[in-house]
Amino acid sequence: MPAEPRPSGIVALAGGVGGAKLAAGLQAVVGAGLTVVVNTGDDFELHGLTIWPDHDTVAYTLAGLEDREQGWGLRDETWHVMGALDRLGGETWFRLGDRDLATHLLRSGRLARGDRATEVALALQAAHGVGPQILPMSDEPVRTEVRTDDGWLTFQDYFVRLRQAPAVREIRFRGIDDARPSAEVGAAIRAAEAIVVCPSNPFVSIGPILALPGIREAIAARRAAGARVVAVSPIVAGRALKGPADRMLQSLGHDPSALGVARLYAGIADVLVVDHADTDLAAAIRSAGIEPLVADTVMTDDASRARLAATVVDASRAATTSRAAARA
Amino acid sequence: MPAEPRPSGIVALAGGVGGAKLAAGLQAVVGAGLTVVVNTGDDFELHGLTIWPDHDTVAYTLAGLEDREQGWGLRDETWHVMGALDRLGGETWFRLGDRDLATHLLRSGRLARGDRATEVALALQAAHGVGPQILPMSDEPVRTEVRTDDGWLTFQDYFVRLRQAPAVREIRFRGIDDARPSAEVGAAIRAAEAIVVCPSNPFVSIGPILALPGIREAIAARRAAGARVVAVSPIVAGRALKGPADRMLQSLGHDPSALGVARLYAGIADVLVVDHADTDLAAAIRSAGIEPLVADTVMTDDASRARLAATVVDASRAATTSRAAARA
Repeated sequence: MPAEPRPSGIVALAGGVGGAKLAAGLQAVVGAGLTVVVNTGDDFELHGLTIWPDHDTVAYTLAGLEDREQGWGLRDETWHVMGALDRLGGETWFRLGDRDLATHLLRSGRLARGDRATEVALALQAAHGVGPQILPMSDEPVRTEVRTDDGWLTFQDYFVRLRQAPAVREIRFRGIDDARPSAEVGAAIRAAEAIVVCPSNPFVSIGPILALPGIREAIAARRAAGARVVAVSPIVAGRALKGPADRMLQSLGHDPSALGVARLYAGIADVLVVDHADTDLAAAIRSAGIEPLVADTVMTDDASRARLAATVVDASRAATTSRAAARA
Repeated sequence: MPAEPRPSGIVALAGGVGGAKLAAGLQAVVGAGLTVVVNTGDDFELHGLTIWPDHDTVAYTLAGLEDREQGWGLRDETWHVMGALDRLGGETWFRLGDRDLATHLLRSGRLARGDRATEVALALQAAHGVGPQILPMSDEPVRTEVRTDDGWLTFQDYFVRLRQAPAVREIRFRGIDDARPSAEVGAAIRAAEAIVVCPSNPFVSIGPILALPGIREAIAARRAAGARVVAVSPIVAGRALKGPADRMLQSLGHDPSALGVARLYAGIADVLVVDHADTDLAAAIRSAGIEPLVADTVMTDDASRARLAATVVDASRAATTSRAAARA
């Protein structure tokens, strides 16, 4: 690894597990210089509580509390409430552990008092001992919905209850027209030395963030000022490492590959980091308008998370250099 | 115990623990012929959830699930969520057990969907295996507030968080003007063979029920049609068996005794059951306009619950007989 100083103002756009893993790697590399802007499109209301799956996955992961075997929730979780709810005949398809519920209670109480989502998020992060800031993309609620052959579904209905089985024909973000990036998100992007698009689902994790009115312009302005945008493909050898991104690419009419991802991010990102398994797509990705960078993108442990993060950070600087060189 | 058939259409007005105990006794005596109309004035919102303390105390007690040592909540409860919430710095002054939380989640989810309070209550009771109907006094929210020397407090703030320490100067029921007895409550009163006012706090447990627009008239109409109203004093020898009823009588300018209770229920009830310890108040109670009936009113076990319930049921019939006799 190079010993040279790394940029500290890294803004990472992230959804759930894949984004959380790279965010943890970035935290290891740049520490509190990291700000994560997290998707809120999969937030939802259940049992009267407001649940923020992506925020909590990133927060638990950055706090080192995540259950890595299971892939979601807290390590060493207990399930007394769900057991009781199940005996009462309640809805238990979205599993809420006892410790996890404490997060939802604390959040829901503060939101019910009228506190801003961003304030609530930062308070939760402080309570959990998270170092970097994790910013909800907006203080206004946005709710992702997907159209299947059986009609429109709320996101968690599709994602968790139906286990992503139906083909997705269309996606919409309810509330997006009235939502704006929070002041904190705007400030973070304006100060970013680099912007990282994490290996999250381009449609339902990164998509809602990029669909926020003003956010593409804010990112473009930052790029124009010299900051580089580095994306990491969530598709490796035509398969999503987790979740339905590959099937969504297909059912929504895109190429189910890192090349399909490259086409989605053309005009937004400077660099697309793809896995060694996709080396043969490099030329096509470059033709799509993004500079490919081949690396190990599969994050199986702390070391591989940090390694990919270092690659991304280096790419954000190298790209600056190469563009500067191209200009010269 | 007499073997003669007992009336089955008993409507009991109840608050929390004292009301729940007599309701359990009435259940033992008249079975599913019991309908409990429960105070909703101490319902409140916490952590985004809607909590119904009196309903749940009665429901858990009638289902035989209550924690008798502690005096509230479920037996064999666990506290994982509260422990986690405490570690996060959340509000834990109102203790919510893990199994109890399942009740709150199920309720809050259904209320958030727009279901009527009465429907939600009956569904919860079915889930918990409760036999008799427990009817929230109203489908419209009513919230009791008490004025102390430090100003107005929400009821649970006073009752649980401040442990009833401040003197209560005034009581109000927010929402009461817009609330009505539910259709089910109206039907139950119209069909009642007898109405029982449980040994609950006259101000904050029975008070909100009697303050509902139309309820006094409904009870009076039923009395005029021959049904008797039997109240049980929650004050024994000048002390409340549980809670602040004795101090409230005092601070609100009433006699802190069964006689003070008698004066509150004059015009509403035909009979006031008082404890043997208050035998000397019988003449004064009669002068206040209610027929006193001296009995053992302290309920320490199933047998004493059922014994008091049988006394109450007998009194509801005896009163009818004696009034019928007086008329003849």
